[in-house]
Amino acid sequence: MGKIICTGLGPGDPDLMSVRSDRAIRSAAHVAYFRKKGRQGQARRIVQGMLAAGVTEYAMEYPVTTELPFDGPEYRDALARFYDDWADRLAQVAQSADVVVLCEGDPFFYGSFMHLYTRLQGRAVVEVIPGITGMTGCWTATGTPITWGDDVLTVLMGTLPEADLVHHMQAADALVVMKTGRNLPKVRAALDAAGRLDQAWLVERGTMPDQRIARLVDVDVSDVPYFAIVLVHGHGRRPELEAVE
Amino acid sequence: MGKIICTGLGPGDPDLMSVRSDRAIRSAAHVAYFRKKGRQGQARRIVQGMLAAGVTEYAMEYPVTTELPFDGPEYRDALARFYDDWADRLAQVAQSADVVVLCEGDPFFYGSFMHLYTRLQGRAVVEVIPGITGMTGCWTATGTPITWGDDVLTVLMGTLPEADLVHHMQAADALVVMKTGRNLPKVRAALDAAGRLDQAWLVERGTMPDQRIARLVDVDVSDVPYFAIVLVHGHGRRPELEAVE
Ligand SMILES: C[S@@+](CC[C@H](N)C(=O)[O-])C[C@H]1O[C@@H](n2cnc3c(N)ncnc32)[C@H](O)[C@@H]1O
Ligand SMILES: C[S@@+](CC[C@H](N)C(=O)[O-])C[C@H]1O[C@@H](n2cnc3c(N)ncnc32)[C@H](O)[C@@H]1O
Repeated sequence: MGKIICTGLGPGDPDLMSVRSDRAIRSAAHVAYFRKKGRQGQARRIVQGMLAAGVTEYAMEYPVTTELPFDGPEYRDALARFYDDWADRLAQVAQSADVVVLCEGDPFFYGSFMHLYTRLQGRAVVEVIPGITGMTGCWTATGTPITWGDDVLTVLMGTLPEADLVHHMQAADALVVMKTGRNLPKVRAALDAAGRLDQAWLVERGTMPDQRIARLVDVDVSDVPYFAIVLVHGHGRRPELEAVE
Repeated sequence: MGKIICTGLGPGDPDLMSVRSDRAIRSAAHVAYFRKKGRQGQARRIVQGMLAAGVTEYAMEYPVTTELPFDGPEYRDALARFYDDWADRLAQVAQSADVVVLCEGDPFFYGSFMHLYTRLQGRAVVEVIPGITGMTGCWTATGTPITWGDDVLTVLMGTLPEADLVHHMQAADALVVMKTGRNLPKVRAALDAAGRLDQAWLVERGTMPDQRIARLVDVDVSDVPYFAIVLVHGHGRRPELEAVE
């Protein structure tokens, strides 16, 4: 009996994955990862050069979306079948061997692995190794602490409606906005409406070789960055409480 | 010329620190860490067995607080002097050798290191190695994803006023409350007022050997846990957007 080990890969630099993930990946005989059709995939790229000779790779390619509206019931069904099929296949492999699933950042933080995880309950032993989240890699790259003292941090998805974004952006001290992509113009407008645009940074491919950091006001938001995070640093309320807690 | 390397240690299990932090710590000749007087200190405990023979240790002990009210100006001054002194000492050592500073979790996420970091600007080369945050270790320990789809996550400090806690707890899908300690009764009351108490978990010493996980409703909040996080998991709004972003 094998098990399914979901390894958090961290933000991108392979040196930033945990000692435990590093060990699991280097010794794996079966490795699975999500990707879009026709791409190498971010997760696979991170472990380039780490996989053992003779490893079996399972590229879990998302069903194509150009044909179907991605918020319609048909696409939702196609996606559910896709996760069902891969849960079946991985559970099958785990009958006799360990399978390592590669997950960007931390698997339990907005990770696609959860769709397999829920389907695998009771069918295979699943172990999750946490990872440094993408946002942690990104704020470290800016060279400024994201939060201290009593700061409130809110993490938002760029896919949210603009009014929701504005509301949350006004309420928190520090902000992280993920899934920016084609939502970047909306995210920018929301930050502006919330009075936070001046303090916002865009980090593309944080900790990766082609990392780029810029003030969001200086960025051409129509030049959609594929893998990026927007950050607003906190200002540190009552930092002296740190030492006595 | 040496430099100051602040290493994120991750949530507690030494296997969960990054490959880069692991390497920096094992090869360090000078190691500094914060702790309370009379304690070994969480950071120092995590690296137990990893330090090289003959390493020089700098235990940065917080000034005692029992004599002074911790929110008064005198204590604030004592703390500022403490950080000033240690910034001087570490900058001094870094004139001729590398110094590794040990930081629980991720250094830029509510970490005390920032008080040295700001003081060291322009006086020493400072490098920060990110780490898995304590909260990431804690939600992994619960065996349930913290967020997916469009969930909004808010991170709160238990030191905030109760009304602020309630307000933020009502607005977000997923919640993390840190610095619980003696604030736990207030945090519990705020969750109750926000209608979120039933879904709340308390994780003490997440990923450490004596880890404890319980529903917050079942916990005696007067039995103050020293190192604990309160979590409320998200419910995953529109998870199908994950694949197409
Ligand atoms: C589906 S979420 C997965 C998050 C991942 N599980 C984590 O812990 O960071 C994908 C989003 O993460 C963000 N992201 C993750 N790593 C990043 C990095 N190194 N640089 C920039 N953005 C990153 C982007 O906003 C991207 O849209
Ligand atoms: C001053 S903050 C430092 C946070 C740290 N820099 C991080 O990235 O997690 C200290 C708080 O972190 C939380 N914490 C950190 N690691 C934890 C763990 N392994 N288990 C429980 N709580 C933890 C506790 O709430 C504690 O009060």
